[in-house]
Amino acid sequence: MKKTRDNIATKLLLTLAAAVLITFQGFSQTKANADAEKAIFPKGEQGPASNFTGKAFNYGLVANDSTYNTVVGNVLFEPGARSNWHRHPAGQILIITAGEGYHQIKGKPIEKMRKGDVVKCPPNVEHWHGASPDSSLHQMYIIPNTEKGIVEWLQPVTDKEYNAFK
Amino acid sequence: MKKTRDNIATKLLLTLAAAVLITFQGFSQTKANADAEKAIFPKGEQGPASNFTGKAFNYGLVANDSTYNTVVGNVLFEPGARSNWHRHPAGQILIITAGEGYHQIKGKPIEKMRKGDVVKCPPNVEHWHGASPDSSLHQMYIIPNTEKGIVEWLQPVTDKEYNAFK
Repeated sequence: MKKTRDNIATKLLLTLAAAVLITFQGFSQTKANADAEKAIFPKGEQGPASNFTGKAFNYGLVANDSTYNTVVGNVLFEPGARSNWHRHPAGQILIITAGEGYHQIKGKPIEKMRKGDVVKCPPNVEHWHGASPDSSLHQMYIIPNTEKGIVEWLQPVTDKEYNAFK
Repeated sequence: MKKTRDNIATKLLLTLAAAVLITFQGFSQTKANADAEKAIFPKGEQGPASNFTGKAFNYGLVANDSTYNTVVGNVLFEPGARSNWHRHPAGQILIITAGEGYHQIKGKPIEKMRKGDVVKCPPNVEHWHGASPDSSLHQMYIIPNTEKGIVEWLQPVTDKEYNAFK
């Protein structure tokens, strides 16, 4: 009698364990899909080596026109990737939607940027931005008043400049 | 001998089932925390009933000034919530970061907006935007050329207007 009870218990537990494992696997897959779908925008086109160090992908959201005078886009910087130094004649607003990165205005220390941060760079001021060494960066940019111009590209950010973050 | 084997098997399976359940519970909690942390920006302040139907929360990202002439913010609309009809003297750009919602330009059909969508509303055109009935909406807005003005609020969107979505 005891033996039969144990057999039934064993079978019940095997069934339970299998059910839990199947549920757990299904849940893991849902989580993996959710992670894959996390990015808000498509990856976009890789930025040219003449303007970027490492891999940075640009996805345009709003093209320039004479109604809004505004350019908006999203850049995905892979870890360690950054823009060259550059200037915007009417300034730029950065909005971080995921990950972690760096921003530097010429002559000032590097500032860390994280999800939810908003960073402004004034008109005609040299700056660069990119991912931190160990994290990618999802960064929207807004260039206002484009009737004054959009961007003037300058020299690359050297490893020495990039690694100066304290 | 068989009885002993069954007993050992039962105990092993009990331990396994418990371990899987504990892991599963931990995983569920991590997932719940991840969901809670998903929003990019803080919830912000509830918009006034004079301008919104239902609950809409505004979080300012960029305040108006004479350098950028741009106002940026994020609105979280709860399901069914929407703005009144309104106009922007220099137009508005909407960027959807999560959820699902509606946007309508006066005289045109309601358009559905989803994560990753960009919607433009031209200067001085009457429009409204909000969540769909069954989903919240996380929506960034950009108001350019604010030297021309920011917003002129009008009448509420009636239930009949809101429910006209096909």
